[in-house]
Amino acid sequence: MSVEDLTVEPLTRAAFAPFGDVIETEGAQMRLINGGSTERFHDLAKVDIAGPDARVLVNIFVGQAFSPPITIEMLERHPFGSQAFYPLQARPFLAVVAPDENGVPGRPRAFLCRGDQGVNYGRNVWHHPLIALGEKSAFLVVDRGGAGDNLEEHFFAGGKFRIARLDPA
Amino acid sequence: MSVEDLTVEPLTRAAFAPFGDVIETEGAQMRLINGGSTERFHDLAKVDIAGPDARVLVNIFVGQAFSPPITIEMLERHPFGSQAFYPLQARPFLAVVAPDENGVPGRPRAFLCRGDQGVNYGRNVWHHPLIALGEKSAFLVVDRGGAGDNLEEHFFAGGKFRIARLDPA
Repeated sequence: MSVEDLTVEPLTRAAFAPFGDVIETEGAQMRLINGGSTERFHDLAKVDIAGPDARVLVNIFVGQAFSPPITIEMLERHPFGSQAFYPLQARPFLAVVAPDENGVPGRPRAFLCRGDQGVNYGRNVWHHPLIALGEKSAFLVVDRGGAGDNLEEHFFAGGKFRIARLDPA
Repeated sequence: MSVEDLTVEPLTRAAFAPFGDVIETEGAQMRLINGGSTERFHDLAKVDIAGPDARVLVNIFVGQAFSPPITIEMLERHPFGSQAFYPLQARPFLAVVAPDENGVPGRPRAFLCRGDQGVNYGRNVWHHPLIALGEKSAFLVVDRGGAGDNLEEHFFAGGKFRIARLDPA
């Protein structure tokens, strides 16, 4: 089985747009509220839930730390809901996503997210489960609860992918 | 005008229950997911949105730091939606809430939230705008967008309240 190396890209709104939202203050619409004491960076992620008995969940995920080389053997997607991750200890993490090609993921792309950036995977967008870096890390996660099967997994049969180093190309 | 001192209480699920949810891993339901690499602390806040064109928003609020003595002159509430706050730099903050008494807030209660605790104010629960402590701090905020007037403010006319010190009584 072949193993292809993935280069790591910095996370930007433009590069990540096909896969979902970058949750960050930079470049966001800001309103001063609370008599001027608070900056509100407004509406940073499209929370998109569907399917039977759908409701929005707020959760905390605590993920084991990965370190290179990181092998990407599978991706998953959620047909009934978007899923947002925001780091709670300001530590970087990896977001690995792929375009859909006739119902299966195409070649993955790996984004290095800074500790002051979150991501929101769009509904039905292929992505790897949480990849924390450095230390075991907590994330606030906004996703979907309800009935129905909201998880589809795809294991790469023909060839795996590998992230050998974290510094963006 | 009188000024009454409020003592600060530690934030616990039990004490905060009349006002909303405490978002924390402690005491939460946990599931191992992602082949065991991630702990999912599940469904920690009731996201409760209503009114015309309601949708869930994810935002970042950056709040100026307050320091004692902190005067509580007003509270607000959101008739169409809950509002969750989670600190992004692991710094403590204050949650000041009050029971409703015939359409106006009763005597406020002040909760000291640890840097690994968030709060979700229930829909229509009286609360003070964001009170960051120590330094200017960022929070992930999950609240409601849509049409209609989602803000009601109440200014205390008869007497204000004051938080003179942060250590819980």
